[in-house]
Amino acid sequence: MILEAIYHRPKLNWSYAYDRSTMHLRLRSKRGDLDAVIAITGDKYGWEQTITHTPMRIFARDELFDYWEVETQPPYRRLRYGFQLVEGENNVWMTERGFEDALPDHPLEFFDFPFMNPVDIFEPPAWVKDAVFYQIFPERYANGDPSLSPKNAEPWGGEPTPVNFFGGDLQGVLDHLDHLSQLGVNAIYFCPLFEATTNHKYNTADYMKVDPHFGTNEQLKELVDACHQRGIRVVLDAVFNHSGREFPPFADVLANGAASPYADWFYVRDWPPRIEDGIPTYDTFAFEPLMPKLNTEHPEVKAYLLEVARYWIEEMDIDGWRLDVANEVDHQFWREFRQTVKALKPDAYLLGEIWHDSLMWLQGDQFDAVMNYPFTNSVLDYVVHGKLDGLGFANEIGKLLAAYSRPVTEVAFNLLGSHDTPRLLTLCDGDVRKMKLAVTLLLTYPGAPCIYYGDEVGLDGGYDPGCRKCMEWDETKQNLELLDFFKQTIALRKEHPALRSTELKILHAEAGDPCIAMERVDSAAGERFLIVLNAGEESCSIDLPLTNQSVWRDLFTATSIEAKQNKLSLELEAYSFSLLQLDVKQPAEA
Amino acid sequence: MILEAIYHRPKLNWSYAYDRSTMHLRLRSKRGDLDAVIAITGDKYGWEQTITHTPMRIFARDELFDYWEVETQPPYRRLRYGFQLVEGENNVWMTERGFEDALPDHPLEFFDFPFMNPVDIFEPPAWVKDAVFYQIFPERYANGDPSLSPKNAEPWGGEPTPVNFFGGDLQGVLDHLDHLSQLGVNAIYFCPLFEATTNHKYNTADYMKVDPHFGTNEQLKELVDACHQRGIRVVLDAVFNHSGREFPPFADVLANGAASPYADWFYVRDWPPRIEDGIPTYDTFAFEPLMPKLNTEHPEVKAYLLEVARYWIEEMDIDGWRLDVANEVDHQFWREFRQTVKALKPDAYLLGEIWHDSLMWLQGDQFDAVMNYPFTNSVLDYVVHGKLDGLGFANEIGKLLAAYSRPVTEVAFNLLGSHDTPRLLTLCDGDVRKMKLAVTLLLTYPGAPCIYYGDEVGLDGGYDPGCRKCMEWDETKQNLELLDFFKQTIALRKEHPALRSTELKILHAEAGDPCIAMERVDSAAGERFLIVLNAGEESCSIDLPLTNQSVWRDLFTATSIEAKQNKLSLELEAYSFSLLQLDVKQPAEA
Repeated sequence: MILEAIYHRPKLNWSYAYDRSTMHLRLRSKRGDLDAVIAITGDKYGWEQTITHTPMRIFARDELFDYWEVETQPPYRRLRYGFQLVEGENNVWMTERGFEDALPDHPLEFFDFPFMNPVDIFEPPAWVKDAVFYQIFPERYANGDPSLSPKNAEPWGGEPTPVNFFGGDLQGVLDHLDHLSQLGVNAIYFCPLFEATTNHKYNTADYMKVDPHFGTNEQLKELVDACHQRGIRVVLDAVFNHSGREFPPFADVLANGAASPYADWFYVRDWPPRIEDGIPTYDTFAFEPLMPKLNTEHPEVKAYLLEVARYWIEEMDIDGWRLDVANEVDHQFWREFRQTVKALKPDAYLLGEIWHDSLMWLQGDQFDAVMNYPFTNSVLDYVVHGKLDGLGFANEIGKLLAAYSRPVTEVAFNLLGSHDTPRLLTLCDGDVRKMKLAVTLLLTYPGAPCIYYGDEVGLDGGYDPGCRKCMEWDETKQNLELLDFFKQTIALRKEHPALRSTELKILHAEAGDPCIAMERVDSAAGERFLIVLNAGEESCSIDLPLTNQSVWRDLFTATSIEAKQNKLSLELEAYSFSLLQLDVKQPAEA
Repeated sequence: MILEAIYHRPKLNWSYAYDRSTMHLRLRSKRGDLDAVIAITGDKYGWEQTITHTPMRIFARDELFDYWEVETQPPYRRLRYGFQLVEGENNVWMTERGFEDALPDHPLEFFDFPFMNPVDIFEPPAWVKDAVFYQIFPERYANGDPSLSPKNAEPWGGEPTPVNFFGGDLQGVLDHLDHLSQLGVNAIYFCPLFEATTNHKYNTADYMKVDPHFGTNEQLKELVDACHQRGIRVVLDAVFNHSGREFPPFADVLANGAASPYADWFYVRDWPPRIEDGIPTYDTFAFEPLMPKLNTEHPEVKAYLLEVARYWIEEMDIDGWRLDVANEVDHQFWREFRQTVKALKPDAYLLGEIWHDSLMWLQGDQFDAVMNYPFTNSVLDYVVHGKLDGLGFANEIGKLLAAYSRPVTEVAFNLLGSHDTPRLLTLCDGDVRKMKLAVTLLLTYPGAPCIYYGDEVGLDGGYDPGCRKCMEWDETKQNLELLDFFKQTIALRKEHPALRSTELKILHAEAGDPCIAMERVDSAAGERFLIVLNAGEESCSIDLPLTNQSVWRDLFTATSIEAKQNKLSLELEAYSFSLLQLDVKQPAEA
């Protein structure tokens, strides 16, 4: 038994209240090392009467580790617990004191989850579990009111540069809500809408005002209402890490220096604020002089930004916030931000822009989710870059599922690209087959998928500014077959709870083999699916170990296939996939 | 290289801001497995220009692991980082993406500590680093005003029972402040002083009032002032997890049931509140009907308790709070509690009663420290119970040092016993030699030591109620030699920064050998100490690898000893110790 590989530490993603009555316990061990892990649980004040042994199950695996999980419902909301580790005849007990060769008799030696206080339980908005997001970069979506366009706006569809304009606006979005409804999305994430000088608007000048080139606050309200009538929720982008240069408090600091009443709203390291050797003498986003970092610890700054949060939630009825550069702002600010927003709208979705490990922002006191770029990277490494074989990709999935608690996985914000990355189709070198593989993975993965505007009609483009092209509204230039594929896959996701559940089991994943097969189950709905992909450039055949006479229906081809000799044999073309549903009329077990 | 043993995850005890300019990075590896670990650090927005390689050092070891640490000062308060793991010719790079066989070239792949926001930095009160605490159980310390004693109070010095009284009070403490000053302690932790029916007062009836048998609020103010004049700080015990039965809101709930305006102040699972089969139908501390759990999420309860916190800090000028059953109260409450208290007194000490792993309460947003019972257990297992040899104890120390960030270690609340455990002398079967070993460990360990009243004069007693005997004030019954030992050791600790620093190096610890030798250094003060213990029942000799001609002075015997042939040879009687200081006149290096 490799004890060095075992990991458990109370709270975080290792022991947490899943809901008000259910605890999840998890433990990590070296892959393949243990035959069983048994959770030993009880109430600390009535240990003898309540001690219970429950086998754990492996819910995820990666290259190095098995991750075990069990759920339990402590009658008095308190849990003392330990683990019995089994390897053949060999038993080791793990408690907070370490590893022992017998079950410790005193409950004080065990791990402790002291009390399941409701306010500490991470309860993300339920609607996100069923959401399909669509990200809109407003300047490039549709020009619905040319009278608002910047004077220097270029004709729609031109080459994007870091600084040019095309006149996208809110009316343009209003005009195209049918497109969104037909696509099947039920939530929009808007890149910033507030007044700012750039085309991306990440340098806010006025947090309380829709950019005049986009429209008015009233028009945004109209848009939000129109979306709500269609069952589409609306999430706005808030840039609280830094302001723009034109934000009046910073303009005042530039004008009046240390004498400005706003001097402490920013982190000026050396007065007056200036650039020395290319580096601002005040803290900024990156080293960008136009984006001075806000001092979010300052009571006035905090009050101002929380009022911004309140205004758009309460007056405009938006459904959540995406928080830009969220991890460079202090945790304490986000706690107050969450409390402010959730008091007004308990099911608002709080989505932080964090590209890295986000454990400490996803404990229930700050964000509901972060931009799941680790998922993006894993899919791209598997489907696009050829860096991962089926086993490598399966290991990445295991790592993702194990890194956070189950509620986090349920509302993860999964994406294949954004305004900050090259377009998926471009990464795929225009190969729509690869693109479909990635989209299939996105739309059958736990959490909320987000589609970057235009991907669905075949928009391409490299890194910024390439990825910020104007939306293609000319149907003759849209890839309608791709659009249809998006619609079908979104519809399947929305129809089948199993494709949204957090139960994901790898059935086939081998080194050197570009294929993967995953099982997705929803017991309550009685649904069982297989998702089988070949990310290789040659066709392949795989045998999945499935019970005889289970009949599986391919949801795209409408053909059926039957398991024989306890296996289901599948042929997959290069860069192709099958989405199979167990025929409900046939009772069968794997 | 055993990759399964490697652990690092950003934030928590693995990467944190030590102060406003310094980051600490840590990594765990299998003990003895790696020859070196090199931290690779840089600014994420200027990676090429700032990338730096810095060797880490092993700062702690336990049975299974080496723990590596390095400090770094990121010029722009942002840190991207990874690790180069070295085993002979073998190099592996660890980043957030996993293990790789070459240094990744893109900084996005590395771990991220996004920004050192001041408000998120754990900055515990500086005075605690130099504090020696003394815990007083007020009913048993001294009866200074018999007119206040409960009618049924028994003569001082009688046998304690769970329910009897002896009349200890605030005047008694005032009368004996000289004892505390002479002992050398500079902080008092008082068990609850607020009105309650029991002798322990953990069932508060009135949070705003000193128990009339102890004195008045005015008298407490007088006591706090008198302590402050002597340089003694005062920490009170707050019982916020539950109230007493006589707390008027609960009394109202008992009287009026669900119609009570205080119905939601508690967690009544089934109305009316009652006992069924020995279990209250409302949440309590343990299953104790007299201690109903407070609903600390309720805005009125929160406001009330925060007002309690304010009152005693602001009006009485106390220096901190010890929080009873702290881990069963919600984290959110403690965050608001910390903000309330620290706004009034930034260097107030917030000490949670938690017996278990407390990582999630010691992130800077809740407590400064917890009751360090894991330290207690380790010392007792080594010195008293014979469960640990020198190596086993060294491993426990390593585990303790690695479990939390360095600021947590600096202000840990270390104790050898309390009102909730048997007395040290009783555990030692009256053997003062063993007791001195434990006390030596306590008083030369990083963090703030706390002495339980009476231990210093040889008070004994088993579990509650035995450990709550009346203080012995009759000098003829005090162990004056023991008292003198306490005074001397406290004085040494206060005189020598090295005995309070967090630098602790094990020089000798071997399996089957009851001896241990530790080095304690304070570079700024130019001090170097050896603490050598024999916790075995036979005398022993050990050789410590120390440079020739280093001369060491024994601080208790005032004799000197010199290293020869690059070793220092020591003879230790059974259950004895040496506290040695390097003679500063002799420059020497280990």
